[in-house]
Amino acid sequence: MNLITGELEKKTIEPEEIKNHIGEIIKIHGSIYKIRKMSDFSFVLLRTKRDVLQCIFTPETAEFKEEELREESCVIVTAKVIEEKRSKTGYDLQMMGLQVLSLPKEGSPIVINNKLVDTSMENLLNYRPVTLRNEKQRAIFKLQEGICIGFRKFLAKENFTEIHTPKIVQAGAEGGANIFSLDYFGKEAYLAQSPQFYKQMMVGVFERVFEIAPVFRAEKHDTSRHLNEYTSVDFEMGYVESFRDIMQMETKMLQSAFAYLKEEYQKEMELLKVKLPQADAIPEIKFRDAKEKIAAEYGRTIKDYDDFEPEEEKLLCEYMQKETGSEFVFVTHYPSKKRPFYAMESREDASETESFDLLFRGLEVTTGGQRIHSYEEQVKKMEKRGMNTALFESYLLMHKYGMPPHGGLGLGLERFTSRLLLQDNVRFSTLFPRDINRVTP
Amino acid sequence: MNLITGELEKKTIEPEEIKNHIGEIIKIHGSIYKIRKMSDFSFVLLRTKRDVLQCIFTPETAEFKEEELREESCVIVTAKVIEEKRSKTGYDLQMMGLQVLSLPKEGSPIVINNKLVDTSMENLLNYRPVTLRNEKQRAIFKLQEGICIGFRKFLAKENFTEIHTPKIVQAGAEGGANIFSLDYFGKEAYLAQSPQFYKQMMVGVFERVFEIAPVFRAEKHDTSRHLNEYTSVDFEMGYVESFRDIMQMETKMLQSAFAYLKEEYQKEMELLKVKLPQADAIPEIKFRDAKEKIAAEYGRTIKDYDDFEPEEEKLLCEYMQKETGSEFVFVTHYPSKKRPFYAMESREDASETESFDLLFRGLEVTTGGQRIHSYEEQVKKMEKRGMNTALFESYLLMHKYGMPPHGGLGLGLERFTSRLLLQDNVRFSTLFPRDINRVTP
Repeated sequence: MNLITGELEKKTIEPEEIKNHIGEIIKIHGSIYKIRKMSDFSFVLLRTKRDVLQCIFTPETAEFKEEELREESCVIVTAKVIEEKRSKTGYDLQMMGLQVLSLPKEGSPIVINNKLVDTSMENLLNYRPVTLRNEKQRAIFKLQEGICIGFRKFLAKENFTEIHTPKIVQAGAEGGANIFSLDYFGKEAYLAQSPQFYKQMMVGVFERVFEIAPVFRAEKHDTSRHLNEYTSVDFEMGYVESFRDIMQMETKMLQSAFAYLKEEYQKEMELLKVKLPQADAIPEIKFRDAKEKIAAEYGRTIKDYDDFEPEEEKLLCEYMQKETGSEFVFVTHYPSKKRPFYAMESREDASETESFDLLFRGLEVTTGGQRIHSYEEQVKKMEKRGMNTALFESYLLMHKYGMPPHGGLGLGLERFTSRLLLQDNVRFSTLFPRDINRVTP
Repeated sequence: MNLITGELEKKTIEPEEIKNHIGEIIKIHGSIYKIRKMSDFSFVLLRTKRDVLQCIFTPETAEFKEEELREESCVIVTAKVIEEKRSKTGYDLQMMGLQVLSLPKEGSPIVINNKLVDTSMENLLNYRPVTLRNEKQRAIFKLQEGICIGFRKFLAKENFTEIHTPKIVQAGAEGGANIFSLDYFGKEAYLAQSPQFYKQMMVGVFERVFEIAPVFRAEKHDTSRHLNEYTSVDFEMGYVESFRDIMQMETKMLQSAFAYLKEEYQKEMELLKVKLPQADAIPEIKFRDAKEKIAAEYGRTIKDYDDFEPEEEKLLCEYMQKETGSEFVFVTHYPSKKRPFYAMESREDASETESFDLLFRGLEVTTGGQRIHSYEEQVKKMEKRGMNTALFESYLLMHKYGMPPHGGLGLGLERFTSRLLLQDNVRFSTLFPRDINRVTP
């Protein structure tokens, strides 16, 4: 009987090992990214897991014909590693042998192996399975992985427990028009707009929890910053003294993630020319003060006292950066009527909540705040809003049987990435975006 | 202007720090889990993030009255750390002061602070926000976190890139009756049954990718092993020589995750009396041979030559453990007609696929295999199945423009956890289960 022991036979070496084989002959696998013909030799770029390696083809040293090389074919290359001080890697790969593992049926209709993929956003997204093979395109999502790992490492260190909460939900969802509904074995169910209720419940269990998972919003907005499905980084923590504890935790998380990116994702940051923002001291400003400040500073009249216009978020960031140097700003004390029923109201002024948004380079990337933990207070607020508390019975179980003072936040991973990369559309940082017009690929 | 610098003021210490404060007075926060009255003192158990700490209340040393102690209230305890060799922790916590942060409205209708929550599964699940506060109940999900982290650490080390793929999908889904549909702005869309297509596409980009995320199956089964939403651990890798490379990778992943649990989750494993299985050598057996072996060994007649009955999976595991000592078994070469259209058929016998399932203690926990990477081969197979290839245009882009030989697997996190814990229902390892009768809490 054959036994599987976990020993993977390796016929090729990893790109990062090549430098240890100067003067030797190695085998390496990858996809031929680009062939650049020069007068008497060719550069052959090989796309590997994370790198694009430069190989050199000369008819004299190769045991195969140049015609056998084809872009986007998958190959195993036998090459001699020749020291080359002028090369970024410190070596050149002189091609000797070629084993073709697979061939494309045809060439891509969109050129993917130049520095930039020169096409419309529509095309870029329609041809995602191919356009993502571009070096810079894929670097966006490698970097996004780094952000996630950075967050996770930090949260684990701070004793947050990672949870998996359901995305199909029923009664008790936050409601509103922005919710997708589905037929669940004859009953109506919904797609979760956030893990809000579940992460609160789990604070009663583990005190500190987090989840990185998809959320769904049936918003009909067709803008550069809205997605109908996105990855939400959610955390929730108990035993807070105020919503500022959550802002402190987020600030610490950002600092930690940026340090991690610096350490492990330099490659992608260079390629994408990322300038990491400072997160050592993030200013906070009350929502109402922010509204007035923007109006005064930029000669605008306030149309809506309860919400920001997108332009105001941009101007506020511009202003705060000028004043404090920070590309982040916490806006606090959002009006109660614009915040959900579980938001804790300020003791001094019930028209305001113990809540915040984090704006980053002109865009809101996080919403957070302290939640109501008292059963009586929660029920009262729901009744005041005309909500049917019976529908929230299982949600209210936690309040009824005891909850610590707590709060948390949700950060949109794609938005955050797109601001980090200074992109003008969140779709560029979304692997396979879902919007009002797009469900494919 | 107030600046948030990421400094979290700590008024209490962490449980793991207590041992460094023998003889000192400390403050610690938590929820009062249980009060056990003895003749002239009381044990007061405090539930913290991961531990249940034993405090001692004596009227002589406490500055508060015993009546102020209430189960499931959230408190800050001031206590003297007294060395106590007979205690597991090496110390006792002598209660001095008490600050009550919150009180439950009433006591839980289900007793949650005994060793076991003595109630029906129905009740256990209906009262999840409360029953999960039980020490053993929550340990299940702490351990599940450990499994996830173990997998992730391993996959990162093996250079897999973590991705986030969409859960709302349209044309090109695997189809069948077991799919939830929803109205997506007037178009029909579906909930992804797996990240299959997307992870394959991403193999063309990063060579190795993984995702841990929810998947949705509209199966009408009401069994102890089916869920309609579960957490799938998916990986997919390029440049494989055969589907055995994937079995090797999974075996290595299991070994690595178990080693990680041993290191970091001893606490929960002791509490739950977990016996980690051996994964150093997992036997493989062909599907057809397995069917025949079970029939012969247990005197059964084969009713269905194309599929296992649940009883057969159990018997096969029993038999293989007897023969080899392994609690795992890879079953290979499943019939083509029972595998999806992207499964690679065996060169020797097209009625079989280059695929496998991993059975663990009587239950299938993983499905995997090699996929078709050639465009022509994939189109031919789809046409043979009468599928409309036009609906799969974006899926087929990757094949058309070049893909390496590749394969991967999906592992059900909740099933895996429940087999590890030898539970007789997968719902016990699901935080908030979704089944044909349950969408709450």
